[in-house]
Amino acid sequence: MSDFEVHHQLLNDCTDVGDAVLCRVLLMNDSRFPWLILVPRINGLRDLHELPVEHRSSLFNEIESASNAVKELIDADKINVAALGNQVPQLHVHVIGRLETDEAWPGPVWGVGKLVPYEHRVQQNMIEFVRATMRLLS
Amino acid sequence: MSDFEVHHQLLNDCTDVGDAVLCRVLLMNDSRFPWLILVPRINGLRDLHELPVEHRSSLFNEIESASNAVKELIDADKINVAALGNQVPQLHVHVIGRLETDEAWPGPVWGVGKLVPYEHRVQQNMIEFVRATMRLLS
Repeated sequence: MSDFEVHHQLLNDCTDVGDAVLCRVLLMNDSRFPWLILVPRINGLRDLHELPVEHRSSLFNEIESASNAVKELIDADKINVAALGNQVPQLHVHVIGRLETDEAWPGPVWGVGKLVPYEHRVQQNMIEFVRATMRLLS
Repeated sequence: MSDFEVHHQLLNDCTDVGDAVLCRVLLMNDSRFPWLILVPRINGLRDLHELPVEHRSSLFNEIESASNAVKELIDADKINVAALGNQVPQLHVHVIGRLETDEAWPGPVWGVGKLVPYEHRVQQNMIEFVRATMRLLS
Protein backbone atom coordinates (compact mmCIF):
# COMPACT_ATOMS: atom_id res chain seq x y z
CA MET A 1 0.00 0.00 0.00
CA SER A 2 3.08 2.24 0.01
CA ASP A 3 2.20 4.15 -3.15
CA PHE A 4 -1.30 4.96 -1.96
CA GLU A 5 -2.51 8.50 -2.52
CA VAL A 6 -5.75 10.19 -1.57
CA HIS A 7 -7.56 11.69 -4.57
CA HIS A 8 -6.85 15.41 -4.89
CA GLN A 9 -10.53 16.38 -4.71
CA LEU A 10 -10.81 14.77 -1.29
CA LEU A 11 -7.65 16.55 -0.18
CA ASN A 12 -9.14 19.87 -1.34
CA ASP A 13 -12.21 19.43 0.86
CA CYS A 14 -10.72 17.67 3.86
CA THR A 15 -7.87 17.55 6.35
CA ASP A 16 -5.85 14.41 6.98
CA VAL A 17 -6.54 13.06 10.47
CA GLY A 18 -4.49 9.86 10.47
CA ASP A 19 -4.50 6.17 9.57
CA ALA A 20 -6.55 3.32 10.99
CA VAL A 21 -5.69 -0.30 10.10
CA LEU A 22 -7.27 -0.08 6.64
CA CYS A 23 -8.28 3.51 6.00
CA ARG A 24 -6.88 6.98 5.81
CA VAL A 25 -9.24 9.11 7.91
CA LEU A 26 -10.12 12.61 6.72
CA LEU A 27 -12.12 15.39 8.37
CA MET A 28 -14.42 17.33 6.00
CA ASN A 29 -13.74 21.02 6.42
CA ASP A 30 -17.36 21.89 7.16
CA SER A 31 -18.13 22.84 10.74
CA ARG A 32 -21.88 22.41 10.25
CA PHE A 33 -21.57 18.63 10.60
CA PRO A 34 -18.97 16.34 12.23
CA TRP A 35 -18.08 14.53 9.02
CA LEU A 36 -15.34 11.95 8.61
CA ILE A 37 -14.31 10.24 5.39
CA LEU A 38 -12.67 6.81 5.38
CA VAL A 39 -10.49 6.00 2.39
CA PRO A 40 -9.24 2.40 2.21
CA ARG A 41 -5.50 2.61 1.47
CA ILE A 42 -5.75 0.38 -1.59
CA ASN A 43 -5.45 1.85 -5.05
CA GLY A 44 -7.90 1.19 -7.85
CA LEU A 45 -11.14 0.73 -5.88
CA ARG A 46 -14.26 2.64 -6.79
CA ASP A 47 -17.43 0.83 -5.67
CA LEU A 48 -17.84 -0.48 -2.12
CA HIS A 49 -18.26 -4.10 -3.20
CA GLU A 50 -14.87 -3.99 -4.93
CA LEU A 51 -13.21 -4.00 -1.50
CA PRO A 52 -11.56 -7.43 -1.16
CA VAL A 53 -13.31 -9.73 1.32
CA GLU A 54 -10.31 -9.86 3.66
CA HIS A 55 -10.55 -6.10 4.31
CA ARG A 56 -14.27 -5.86 4.91
CA SER A 57 -14.28 -6.46 8.65
CA SER A 58 -11.62 -3.76 9.06
CA LEU A 59 -13.77 -1.32 7.13
CA PHE A 60 -16.80 -2.15 9.25
CA ASN A 61 -14.73 -1.75 12.44
CA GLU A 62 -13.52 1.63 11.25
CA ILE A 63 -17.03 2.75 10.31
CA GLU A 64 -18.07 1.80 13.85
CA SER A 65 -15.17 3.65 15.41
CA ALA A 66 -15.78 6.75 13.25
CA SER A 67 -19.51 6.58 14.05
CA ASN A 68 -18.77 6.51 17.76
CA ALA A 69 -16.43 9.48 17.40
CA VAL A 70 -18.90 11.70 15.52
CA LYS A 71 -21.72 10.59 17.80
CA GLU A 72 -19.76 11.58 20.89
CA LEU A 73 -18.69 14.92 19.41
CA ILE A 74 -22.22 16.33 19.16
CA ASP A 75 -24.37 13.71 20.91
CA ALA A 76 -25.66 12.93 17.40
CA ASP A 77 -29.24 11.80 16.85
CA LYS A 78 -28.30 9.72 13.79
CA ILE A 79 -25.22 8.61 11.90
CA ASN A 80 -25.28 8.68 8.09
CA VAL A 81 -22.91 6.25 6.38
CA ALA A 82 -22.51 6.32 2.61
CA ALA A 83 -20.26 5.29 -0.24
CA LEU A 84 -21.44 7.44 -3.15
CA GLY A 85 -18.40 8.46 -5.17
CA ASN A 86 -20.18 9.96 -8.15
CA GLN A 87 -17.77 12.88 -8.21
CA VAL A 88 -14.53 11.38 -6.86
CA PRO A 89 -13.47 8.11 -8.49
CA GLN A 90 -11.76 6.65 -5.41
CA LEU A 91 -13.65 4.51 -2.90
CA HIS A 92 -14.42 6.55 0.20
CA VAL A 93 -17.02 6.20 2.92
CA HIS A 94 -18.74 9.18 4.50
CA VAL A 95 -19.55 8.96 8.23
CA ILE A 96 -21.58 11.96 9.30
CA GLY A 97 -23.10 12.84 12.66
CA ARG A 98 -26.56 14.33 12.30
CA LEU A 99 -28.79 16.35 14.59
CA GLU A 100 -32.51 16.76 14.15
CA THR A 101 -31.81 20.49 14.34
CA ASP A 102 -29.05 20.63 11.71
CA GLU A 103 -29.33 22.60 8.49
CA ALA A 104 -30.00 19.64 6.21
CA TRP A 105 -32.23 17.47 8.44
CA PRO A 106 -34.03 15.25 7.57
CA GLY A 107 -32.44 15.23 4.11
CA PRO A 108 -28.90 14.13 3.29
CA VAL A 109 -26.11 16.71 3.69
CA TRP A 110 -24.61 16.63 0.19
CA GLY A 111 -25.14 19.79 -1.78
CA VAL A 112 -27.08 21.54 0.98
CA GLY A 113 -26.28 25.19 1.66
CA LYS A 114 -22.77 26.54 1.89
CA LEU A 115 -19.86 24.88 3.60
CA VAL A 116 -18.69 26.68 6.76
CA PRO A 117 -14.96 26.08 7.25
CA TYR A 118 -13.66 25.35 10.74
CA GLU A 119 -11.80 27.92 12.76
CA HIS A 120 -8.25 26.61 13.06
CA ARG A 121 -8.35 25.90 16.78
CA VAL A 122 -11.71 24.10 16.62
CA GLN A 123 -10.46 22.00 13.73
CA GLN A 124 -7.31 21.07 15.64
CA ASN A 125 -9.40 20.02 18.63
CA MET A 126 -11.61 17.87 16.38
CA ILE A 127 -8.57 16.22 14.86
CA GLU A 128 -7.05 15.48 18.27
CA PHE A 129 -10.34 14.06 19.51
CA VAL A 130 -10.80 11.80 16.48
CA ARG A 131 -7.18 10.61 16.59
CA ALA A 132 -7.58 9.65 20.22
CA THR A 133 -11.02 8.02 20.04
CA MET A 134 -10.25 6.13 16.82
CA ARG A 135 -6.69 5.32 18.01
CA LEU A 136 -5.22 6.54 14.75
CA LEU A 137 -1.60 6.74 13.75
CA SER A 138 -0.92 10.31 12.72
CA MET B 1 -36.22 -13.14 13.79
CA SER B 2 -39.76 -14.48 13.41
CA ASP B 3 -41.53 -11.33 14.60
CA PHE B 4 -39.57 -9.10 12.23
CA GLU B 5 -41.54 -6.43 10.38
CA VAL B 6 -40.44 -3.92 7.78
CA HIS B 7 -41.24 -0.33 8.80
CA HIS B 8 -44.48 0.87 7.20
CA GLN B 9 -42.80 3.84 5.48
CA LEU B 10 -40.48 1.49 3.60
CA LEU B 11 -43.47 -0.67 2.65
CA ASN B 12 -45.24 2.42 1.32
CA ASP B 13 -42.37 3.27 -1.03
CA CYS B 14 -41.19 -0.21 -2.01
CA THR B 15 -42.19 -3.70 -3.08
CA ASP B 16 -41.01 -6.81 -1.27
CA VAL B 17 -38.63 -8.79 -3.47
CA GLY B 18 -37.59 -11.60 -1.13
CA ASP B 19 -35.17 -12.64 1.61
CA ALA B 20 -31.41 -13.10 1.50
CA VAL B 21 -29.59 -14.74 4.44
CA LEU B 22 -29.73 -11.60 6.58
CA CYS B 23 -31.87 -9.02 4.82
CA ARG B 24 -35.33 -8.49 3.45
CA VAL B 25 -34.79 -7.06 -0.04
CA LEU B 26 -37.10 -4.32 -1.29
CA LEU B 27 -37.39 -2.63 -4.68
CA MET B 28 -38.01 1.13 -4.53
CA ASN B 29 -40.99 1.94 -6.71
CA ASP B 30 -39.13 4.52 -8.79
CA SER B 31 -38.34 3.50 -12.35
CA ARG B 32 -35.79 6.31 -12.80
CA PHE B 33 -33.15 4.32 -10.88
CA PRO B 34 -32.68 0.59 -10.18
CA TRP B 35 -32.84 0.96 -6.40
CA LEU B 36 -32.80 -1.86 -3.88
CA ILE B 37 -33.12 -1.53 -0.12
CA LEU B 38 -31.68 -4.13 2.23
CA VAL B 39 -33.30 -4.39 5.65
CA PRO B 40 -31.53 -6.69 8.14
CA ARG B 41 -34.25 -8.90 9.65
CA ILE B 42 -33.36 -7.96 13.23
CA ASN B 43 -35.59 -5.65 15.22
CA GLY B 44 -34.35 -2.61 17.09
CA LEU B 45 -31.41 -1.55 14.88
CA ARG B 46 -31.09 2.01 13.64
CA ASP B 47 -27.46 2.95 12.88
CA LEU B 48 -25.27 0.74 10.69
CA HIS B 49 -22.68 0.13 13.43
CA GLU B 50 -25.38 -1.33 15.68
CA LEU B 51 -25.46 -4.43 13.46
CA PRO B 52 -23.93 -7.25 15.55
CA VAL B 53 -20.46 -8.29 14.39
CA GLU B 54 -21.59 -11.80 13.46
CA HIS B 55 -23.97 -10.43 10.82
CA ARG B 56 -21.63 -7.97 9.16
CA SER B 57 -20.13 -10.27 6.57
CA SER B 58 -23.64 -11.31 5.51
CA LEU B 59 -24.61 -7.68 5.07
CA PHE B 60 -21.50 -6.99 3.00
CA ASN B 61 -22.20 -10.09 0.86
CA GLU B 62 -25.73 -8.92 0.27
CA ILE B 63 -24.60 -5.38 -0.60
CA GLU B 64 -22.26 -6.98 -3.15
CA SER B 65 -24.98 -9.18 -4.57
CA ALA B 66 -27.45 -6.26 -4.76
CA SER B 67 -24.75 -4.08 -6.35
CA ASN B 68 -24.12 -6.69 -9.01
CA ALA B 69 -27.85 -6.95 -9.72
CA VAL B 70 -28.43 -3.21 -10.17
CA LYS B 71 -25.20 -2.90 -12.14
CA GLU B 72 -26.29 -5.59 -14.56
CA LEU B 73 -29.79 -4.17 -14.94
CA ILE B 74 -28.66 -0.90 -16.52
CA ASP B 75 -24.92 -1.38 -17.05
CA ALA B 76 -24.52 1.15 -14.23
CA ASP B 77 -21.61 3.58 -14.19
CA LYS B 78 -21.56 3.73 -10.38
CA ILE B 79 -23.22 2.09 -7.41
CA ASN B 80 -24.32 4.26 -4.47
CA VAL B 81 -24.54 2.49 -1.12
CA ALA B 82 -25.91 4.31 1.91
CA ALA B 83 -27.38 3.82 5.35
CA LEU B 84 -29.01 7.17 6.11
CA GLY B 85 -32.26 6.52 7.99
CA ASN B 86 -33.05 10.08 9.00
CA GLN B 87 -36.70 9.57 8.11
CA VAL B 88 -37.27 5.86 8.80
CA PRO B 89 -36.01 4.63 12.20
CA GLN B 90 -35.18 1.09 11.06
CA LEU B 91 -31.74 0.20 9.76
CA HIS B 92 -31.85 -0.12 5.97
CA VAL B 93 -29.18 0.11 3.29
CA HIS B 94 -29.82 1.71 -0.10
CA VAL B 95 -28.09 0.14 -3.11
CA ILE B 96 -28.68 2.28 -6.19
CA GLY B 97 -27.42 1.87 -9.73
CA ARG B 98 -26.42 5.20 -11.25
CA LEU B 99 -25.83 6.39 -14.80
CA GLU B 100 -23.91 9.50 -15.75
CA THR B 101 -27.00 10.42 -17.75
CA ASP B 102 -29.58 9.95 -14.97
CA GLU B 103 -31.74 12.74 -13.63
CA ALA B 104 -29.82 13.26 -10.38
CA TRP B 105 -26.21 12.74 -11.59
CA PRO B 106 -23.71 13.60 -10.17
CA GLY B 107 -25.66 14.35 -7.00
CA PRO B 108 -27.35 11.79 -4.75
CA VAL B 109 -30.85 10.62 -5.69
CA TRP B 110 -32.73 11.42 -2.48
CA GLY B 111 -35.25 14.22 -2.82
CA VAL B 112 -34.51 14.81 -6.51
CA GLY B 113 -37.46 15.39 -8.83
CA LYS B 114 -40.59 13.28 -8.77
CA LEU B 115 -40.73 9.53 -8.37
CA VAL B 116 -41.87 7.69 -11.51
CA PRO B 117 -43.64 4.46 -10.50
CA TYR B 118 -42.94 1.29 -12.48
CA GLU B 119 -45.41 -0.10 -14.95
CA HIS B 120 -46.61 -3.38 -13.45
CA ARG B 121 -44.99 -5.66 -16.02
CA VAL B 122 -41.63 -3.88 -15.84
CA GLN B 123 -41.69 -4.05 -12.05
CA GLN B 124 -42.48 -7.79 -12.14
CA ASN B 125 -39.56 -8.35 -14.51
CA MET B 126 -37.25 -6.40 -12.20
CA ILE B 127 -38.38 -8.45 -9.22
CA GLU B 128 -37.85 -11.73 -11.06
CA PHE B 129 -34.40 -10.63 -12.18
CA VAL B 130 -33.34 -9.55 -8.68
CA ARG B 131 -34.72 -12.73 -7.09
CA ALA B 132 -32.75 -14.84 -9.54
CA THR B 133 -29.45 -12.94 -9.46
CA MET B 134 -29.47 -12.50 -5.66
CA ARG B 135 -30.79 -16.06 -5.17
CA LEU B 136 -33.52 -14.83 -2.85
CA LEU B 137 -36.24 -16.81 -1.15
CA SER B 138 -39.53 -15.25 -2.15
